[in-house]
Order: sequence, then C-alpha cells, then structure tokens
Amino acid sequence: MITSWYNISADLPRPLPPPMDPYEGDSRIALLTRILPSDLIDQEFTAERYVPIPEKVQELYERIGRPTPLRRARGLERAIGTKAKIYYKFEGALPGGSHKLNTAVAQVYYASMDGAREVVTETGAGQWGLAVAIASALIGINAKVFMTKNSYMNKKQRVLFMRVFGADVSPSPSDLTEFGKKTLAKDPNHPGSLGVAISEAIEYAVGGEGRKYIPGSVLEFVLLHQTVIGQEAMQQMPEEPDLVVGCVGGGSNFSGLSFPFIGAKLMGKGFERTRFLAVESNAAPKLTRGSYMYDYPDTAGTLPMIRMYTLGHDYVPPPIHAAGLRYHGAAPSLSLLVKDGYVETRSYGQGEVMEAARLFAKSEAILPAPESAHAIRAVIDEAKRMNGGTILFNLSGHGLLDADAYERVLMP
Amino acid sequence: MITSWYNISADLPRPLPPPMDPYEGDSRIALLTRILPSDLIDQEFTAERYVPIPEKVQELYERIGRPTPLRRARGLERAIGTKAKIYYKFEGALPGGSHKLNTAVAQVYYASMDGAREVVTETGAGQWGLAVAIASALIGINAKVFMTKNSYMNKKQRVLFMRVFGADVSPSPSDLTEFGKKTLAKDPNHPGSLGVAISEAIEYAVGGEGRKYIPGSVLEFVLLHQTVIGQEAMQQMPEEPDLVVGCVGGGSNFSGLSFPFIGAKLMGKGFERTRFLAVESNAAPKLTRGSYMYDYPDTAGTLPMIRMYTLGHDYVPPPIHAAGLRYHGAAPSLSLLVKDGYVETRSYGQGEVMEAARLFAKSEAILPAPESAHAIRAVIDEAKRMNGGTILFNLSGHGLLDADAYERVLMP
Repeated sequence: MITSWYNISADLPRPLPPPMDPYEGDSRIALLTRILPSDLIDQEFTAERYVPIPEKVQELYERIGRPTPLRRARGLERAIGTKAKIYYKFEGALPGGSHKLNTAVAQVYYASMDGAREVVTETGAGQWGLAVAIASALIGINAKVFMTKNSYMNKKQRVLFMRVFGADVSPSPSDLTEFGKKTLAKDPNHPGSLGVAISEAIEYAVGGEGRKYIPGSVLEFVLLHQTVIGQEAMQQMPEEPDLVVGCVGGGSNFSGLSFPFIGAKLMGKGFERTRFLAVESNAAPKLTRGSYMYDYPDTAGTLPMIRMYTLGHDYVPPPIHAAGLRYHGAAPSLSLLVKDGYVETRSYGQGEVMEAARLFAKSEAILPAPESAHAIRAVIDEAKRMNGGTILFNLSGHGLLDADAYERVLMP
Repeated sequence: MITSWYNISADLPRPLPPPMDPYEGDSRIALLTRILPSDLIDQEFTAERYVPIPEKVQELYERIGRPTPLRRARGLERAIGTKAKIYYKFEGALPGGSHKLNTAVAQVYYASMDGAREVVTETGAGQWGLAVAIASALIGINAKVFMTKNSYMNKKQRVLFMRVFGADVSPSPSDLTEFGKKTLAKDPNHPGSLGVAISEAIEYAVGGEGRKYIPGSVLEFVLLHQTVIGQEAMQQMPEEPDLVVGCVGGGSNFSGLSFPFIGAKLMGKGFERTRFLAVESNAAPKLTRGSYMYDYPDTAGTLPMIRMYTLGHDYVPPPIHAAGLRYHGAAPSLSLLVKDGYVETRSYGQGEVMEAARLFAKSEAILPAPESAHAIRAVIDEAKRMNGGTILFNLSGHGLLDADAYERVLMP
C-alpha cells in the first residue's frame, strides 16, 4: 500500500506561481480558507515532497479497492498490430466508476476532521458528485450536491445513484441560494452551468453551520491525492515506460498517474527517456490552444485566480460526450510542466475518440468512459508509430453510465 | 490461478439423475448433442472430479480480471452491529458486471474449437447476452442474441452495449425463424418470453452452417465453469466460513461459489461446521415451494427434461427487478443437494431485498445487482442472529445497469 501522496511542487524546475486575489473586490483566498477543510489549505501550499496519507484514508483506500489493477492490453496490441507493449491503470474499477473517489475520500475525511457534518460541492455530468456521495456514505456525513440543471435532467442514473448513497442533490440554479434565486429571476429556464453551481455551492457552504466546501479538480491538493495512481503503477510496472498518457479535464487523472514518474525523472531517479502526453478534447483545447496566464478556475470568479493554461473563464465549450473534459483551464503544476516542455499535448475530436473507445471495448472487454477514450485514441496513434517500446496510460473511468455517448456513435 | 474446474457430481451423496427425453416426440438429447459444442456435451456427463481449464481459457480468465477480489464487508458489519465477520467474492468486478462471463468465455472458446463462426443464444434481462457478446469479441467470432422483446424495449443500455461489443441482437419473437414468425402471426404484439427466445435460438443455430448454441445457466457444465469462484475464494479466505450464501436463478452463481466448499466437506476435507444457504425470490420460489421432479428447463420443451426443483416449465413469474431470478427451476446437482439436506433454502420479497441493497451500497460503496441483493438480505438476517462466526457470500453482479430497480424503491 502507498502511505504518502507525492507533491510535485517540491521538484518542479521553478516555483509554482501561487493563487492570487484579483485587484478589486473581496479576497477570494480568505474565502477559500474559510470554506475548505483546513488540512486541504495546508496541502495546497505545502513544499513537502511527501504528504503522509492519514491511516483512516489508507483504510478507506483499501476498502474501495486500492491498489487498482495494472493490466496489459494484449488484445488491443493485437488489434492494432503494434510491437509496443501497452499497459493501463484501471481506475474505472473504483466504486463510482472513476478516479474521482481517490480525492473524494480524502477531502470528505478532512472535512469530518474539521467537525463538518455536511460537505457541499457542485457537479456537471455527475462523476464527481457520485464520488462525493459515496465518500460521504463511507465516512458517515451528509453530502449536498448542486448539479447543473441540464445534466440533472439528462443524467438521471447518476442523480439516482447519488441519492442511493444518501446524497442530497439539487438542480442548479436552485432557490436554495441568493445567487440561484437571482439567476432564476433573470431566466426561469436557465439550463445551469458549472460556474453557477460552484457559486451556489460556496454560498450554501458559507451560509450554514458545520458545512465545508470541497472541489473536484484543478486545485493542487486534488492532484496530490491522485498520485496514489502513479505510485502504485510505478510498483506494478515490469519496466520503465517510454510513454505515459492520460486525458485532461482539469488535470487530476493525468497528473495523478504521471507526476510520480515526472518527479522521479526530475530528481534524476530513472525515466530519462520517458515521454509524457496530455490529451484533451477539441471542445476545450486549453493546453494546445489556450494562453498561460492568471485566470479564475470558476466561471463566476468566486475562487482565487491561478496561473494556468486557460481558454478564459467565460469560455463556453460545445456539448460533447466527454463532459468531464469540458473545462476551460488546467491545474497550475501541470500547466507549468507543459509550458516548460516536460509534458507534450494533443487534442482530438469526439468521432475519432469514440471509435477508439469501441476498438478498446471489443479487444479488452471494458467499456471506457468517453473521457478516458481520449487517452486511448492517443495510445493507439502512438503505438502504431512506435517500433516496440512500452506505453502506460490511465483508464480513468468506465463507460457503463455513458450509454448516450455510445448510442450516438453507433447509431448516428 | 485456478487450473481446473471442480465437478461436484464426482462427490455427490448419490448419482445425479441424467437428462431424459420425453416419452413422445423427437429426441431432445440428440438435438442437444447437435447444437452444443462437443466438449460441453462431454462436460455435462463427465464423472471426473477435476476438468482441466484449457490454457487459452485460463489466459482469458486472466484478461477479464480473475482472480476477482475477496473483500471483507467491514462497513456492513458496523452498520448492522454484528460480531460476525462478513466476506464477499465480488464477481461484479468482471466486464459485463456479473459472473456470467466465467462460463461465456469457456463456452465461446469451445464453440470456436468446433469450428463455429457464430454462437447463438437467448437472453432475458440481458446479463447473459452481454457476457456472450463480450466473450465473442475477445475470441473473435460472431454472437447472435435473441432477446425477449419486452426487455429489448426496456433495457436499452444492455442492447446498446451488446452491439458495441459487436453482437447481433434481435428482439424475440422475430421473423428470423419459423417459430418466431408463427408466434408473431398469432400475436403481432407478443412481448416475448425466455421460452420463445430459446426456441428461436435453437432453430436459428440448427438452421445455418458454423453455428453453435450456448446456454447461460441450469446445465451442469455451466455450474462447472463457475467453480472458479469458489476455488479462488477457498484460497483467499483467511478462515473456514460458518455460512456460505448465494442467490439462485438457475443456480450457477450459488453453485460456483459453494460447490468447492461442499465438495471438500463431502470428501471429509474440512468445513464440517459450514452451512450453505441458497436464496431465491418470492417471485420464483422453486427451492422453497417447488417440486423435485423431471421437467423441461425451457418453457417450450425444446431441451431434454432434467430432474430438479421446479415450479413447472409453464410457470409465469411476476415481473421483478431481479429478472435473473425469474426462473422456474434449479440445476440438477443443486436440486439434489437441497433435496438431501446439504443446502438450506430461503426466499425473500423485493422490498426487503432492495432495502438490503441500499444498506450495502451505503456501507460498502458498491451498488449490488438486485439479484445479488437477495444474498445480502439473507447475510444481514443471519449475521444479526449469529454471535460471531464467519460468513462468505457471492456478490454476483453490480447494479450500475439496474437504475430502474433502485428508482422504484427510492421514489415509489
């Protein structure tokens, strides 16, 4: 079992630009320190290379099925006729079907240590909300989830399953907050947005006793928690990979897998020839076509600004199956590594991605989430180019709750 | 890794009554030997205690994720306040989400060894059909699935996923067979039944070159293949269980877990104090309220008669969430063990079962299939009664594709 999370900011080639308040208005940093569990604030800014995983969280990791399997994709290798060996870490094996639970159990645990009786969060497609619902059930505190109304109407299974785990789910905008009421007054049929949902979650967290707000990606401590993936993979891999691949929404699953390897490389502890490839969607191409600058991580500008690759916090991505990749920015540490050339980037359109998903399903017997299928697309293209060598990628989620994505591809 | 399947007929307290032809009409046994892969016919009648698992099937077992995890349900133990230790074998971790894949990969493999280019089967709710679709994709032959029309219309996700894996799925009754056409002529709106679907699958298999028919439960070789579950569990368990529990549709998942333990007990190799409990649905209570007699395993009477606990092959169970338990009979070897008192039985209604499912989800972070939740209900009731001791049960499937079952319970 892994007993510490790995903090790459200890080994970055240059210091990580810190979160920043805007020149005008209330301090977002002060707000953040009030609504987040205090240990998470410490973790956001720590320079320690290793952060011990609390015993209780280690126990929870074991209960949810960690370590997750590392598998060789022999069927896929055969299907594309490559000499490269392809390995994947299967985070879709976790309850809830995605890597999100790795940080959800940690965050909910720290919230409970702060005496919180309820964690509050927002969710888009619902993967994060489901992970929070599960973590809260395991730890025994309430979960309040603001879900963008459009998803709430269309992703009925995820709403239902959040409720099975005991979470209280509201479509956003809601009449539970002033911001929600104001939004509804302007447009009673507002479809909701992640920005509105974040604003409601934060207002709701601030407005009641015993509530803590917890976020699903982008913040550094989220990436930190996900490094269990890469540390396990390093123990499980029979040889050094030539290429490490993951998809990027806010950056947590890619970073969770790759940071322990990148860190070892930066420290001169092997992996000299390993390349790292972050794969995003054409619908939100911040790494390939965005700017490296200070911007808000949320649409409403409620959180502190962070330095990252971004398309602008008011960027409106087109609807795609891989809703988890519809994010305008990428986490600061990942952005810095891209900026300085340690991580390569690429973006794909969803047609070619879902074809890769189908090929993977048929050859490996696992339905990948549309998000994870972006990584698969890149792996297939790279494997065809490579003459031998070893690839490792993160199968961050399964696609059993993404029937709509498969339906539109198979029966257009 | 397990290298042989365990055949309990070698150790039964008395000989297993063989399949039988009816007094009139064509020989069903002759038909069966024509349409089934030949190795499966041998396995149906073999007296060998151990049947070697072909190397290729062993490799497939590894690729689909065997051995599956054995987990201790500490959260559930705490939730119900029991001193008993509860362990479960998680077959829902397999692709397709159920134990069905254990026999699907074996059967499709043997069909391909016979030179078949296509396997043909029927499916009700679609768990078996999905397993066959996955196995066929892995082995590289076609799958033709006749799915009861009512399920075909209502279980759209499973239909879709079967197609993603490349299977050819038809609603039954169809116009692809004479029997289907006849059925439709009588009633164009016939909702379909497993009996009609079996008849169509067999007619379709007989009617074309390179086709083999494969069944999902009840036959002895199906139970044989499932014994990988119990053999793994025996290696994984830290101590002898006092109680082994599983749910029963046709009997394959309960038998797969329990037969290696029962066999060891019958051979005098430990497990003297271990009890075995088969749990069924009030909707199809063959073990608790059926008769032990010769009857057809299929509604249409196309297959040979077998001696089993049955409610009659024309029994029409009420619709329930746990569609996999809506079967009128139980496999011959299991029935014999029940008849002779080696296996206890119990039945539950779906309200109490789905409440158990919810409690398990909240305490263990895994959504159980409604079928498997029958075992959980019994485990909870037994654990509350027991003062200490160890329970092992089979979590035969996850419930991610059973949103409808959870919806009706949570939001009646």
